[in-house]
Amino acid sequence: MLKSVLRIRIEWSHCDPARIIFNPNYYIWMDHGAHALMEAAGFPFLKLVAGPNFRGLPLVASNAEFFSPARLGDRLDLWSEVERFGTKSMTMVHEFRRDGIVVARGREVRVWAGAAPADDPEKLVAIPIPDDVREMLSRDGTVDMTA
Amino acid sequence: MLKSVLRIRIEWSHCDPARIIFNPNYYIWMDHGAHALMEAAGFPFLKLVAGPNFRGLPLVASNAEFFSPARLGDRLDLWSEVERFGTKSMTMVHEFRRDGIVVARGREVRVWAGAAPADDPEKLVAIPIPDDVREMLSRDGTVDMTA
Amino acid sequence: MLKSVLRIRIEWSHCDPARIIFNPNYYIWMDHGAHALMEAAGFPFLKLVAGPNFRGLPLVASNAEFFSPARLGDRLDLWSEVERFGTKSMTMVHEFRRDGIVVARGREVRVWAGAAPADDPEKLVAIPIPDDVREMLSRDGTVDMTA
Amino acid sequence: MLKSVLRIRIEWSHCDPARIIFNPNYYIWMDHGAHALMEAAGFPFLKLVAGPNFRGLPLVASNAEFFSPARLGDRLDLWSEVERFGTKSMTMVHEFRRDGIVVARGREVRVWAGAAPADDPEKLVAIPIPDDVREMLSRDGTVDMTA
Repeated sequence: MLKSVLRIRIEWSHCDPARIIFNPNYYIWMDHGAHALMEAAGFPFLKLVAGPNFRGLPLVASNAEFFSPARLGDRLDLWSEVERFGTKSMTMVHEFRRDGIVVARGREVRVWAGAAPADDPEKLVAIPIPDDVREMLSRDGTVDMTA
Repeated sequence: MLKSVLRIRIEWSHCDPARIIFNPNYYIWMDHGAHALMEAAGFPFLKLVAGPNFRGLPLVASNAEFFSPARLGDRLDLWSEVERFGTKSMTMVHEFRRDGIVVARGREVRVWAGAAPADDPEKLVAIPIPDDVREMLSRDGTVDMTA
Repeated sequence: MLKSVLRIRIEWSHCDPARIIFNPNYYIWMDHGAHALMEAAGFPFLKLVAGPNFRGLPLVASNAEFFSPARLGDRLDLWSEVERFGTKSMTMVHEFRRDGIVVARGREVRVWAGAAPADDPEKLVAIPIPDDVREMLSRDGTVDMTA
Repeated sequence: MLKSVLRIRIEWSHCDPARIIFNPNYYIWMDHGAHALMEAAGFPFLKLVAGPNFRGLPLVASNAEFFSPARLGDRLDLWSEVERFGTKSMTMVHEFRRDGIVVARGREVRVWAGAAPADDPEKLVAIPIPDDVREMLSRDGTVDMTA
């Protein structure tokens, strides 16, 4: 499967009074990872949103396990890839590594959302993941998406 | 079990370009819920931190399911309680309700952390949850912790 | 001038490793205050956005002074009002008070944005603030907008 | 003066329902810039905090002007340097550039904080900026601190 990598600088702003990363930041970074992976596959959100029937990749579930606290000054590498495809949804797995060691791992279940036909513009409906997206995300390779 | 309730105003700042709540906010609010629950039980963090051997309630895992998107202008009630006690850890369950309907539900597994003896101040070690904490969190009742 | 008040619970998530509020949170809360003030005046964003030619109140400048650090467990009251009207812009002033004492004060300069005519949907142009908005924000009174 | 540069990837998580950067993010990035600048000068916070009498660089004031909205997919370069030294405080200026054009500029006034002697560990007092810090921040040069 295609893998994207984002390098993360742990900042003062990410840390809480216990001097470790405030955990919801991992979920924010997983969202960055999901977008980086889509961009690595040739489908940046800007391009998808400009298309006729794409309304985003809303989350239906997410989770994470935290193995070792990361702290101010650490550098983490976030590795993202699709773990499983459904027809209209996919599970992405995100690994946070410090010096090659996994310090946290999380998953996101996202659906491919289109507009609900004959309905108001705010409504979404899950639609099949396009074949070309599925194919590109399934290729081998690793893309570093760090700015 | 003791339940705490926090009322949440969904703000512009919580919403993403798809005009729904950016999901990591739910994890931030679960953290607020965990602190509100501890405070409702008579153990606000400020009091715990002032004690001799409390270093926080670090997360070892968390997850959430999102059933219905919440939007700008919504008001959510966050209900938090302990679902399961281990010896040194506990699982909290957090429900987000809009007009009484659950729109998202998440769980946090937290350990009771003390200082690792004869060690540097940054190190943590899981220690048994104090009996009085366990007892107070197990009582029946609901406390509204909204500011 | 019309004043809105929002009560803020200082949470663990707002505090940094120095155990005080991470300052950008004040700017997030000023944004909440701006929306609360508009809602108090009878113009919640949801209503404005549904109108024919409203694209938001983008900031052109903001600033804040921090007089006294606020900490975990504090409750702050955020008082917001318009300080000065221009034709197409207005300056809002936001005061954060703890037990009646101002601990921080900030200002936001916002423009009233409409769609740029005959242009792409992403373009904005400053247009005159509607008279009824100006009038309602200029009335005397204080509205508590806490959830 | 010494300049640090941080490259920023504008993410979905940074954007609001108007599809532009939610402004408080600029203040978060200015904090990143301040830390990057200190690190570029040879004084990362981790090193300073380990010293005998350093309690951080609390903000007493900040401000920003926003010249042009930045959007999803943009890459910004954040240039940070000290603009003015006082005895116990300094003003940092932070410029956000897209393709070399300044899209936003902000300033932070920070004090050098030490522990208030014979007092509780939470109290801070402004103390003179050390000479070696002042000297290193005053040298010419630009350091890219991107992860």
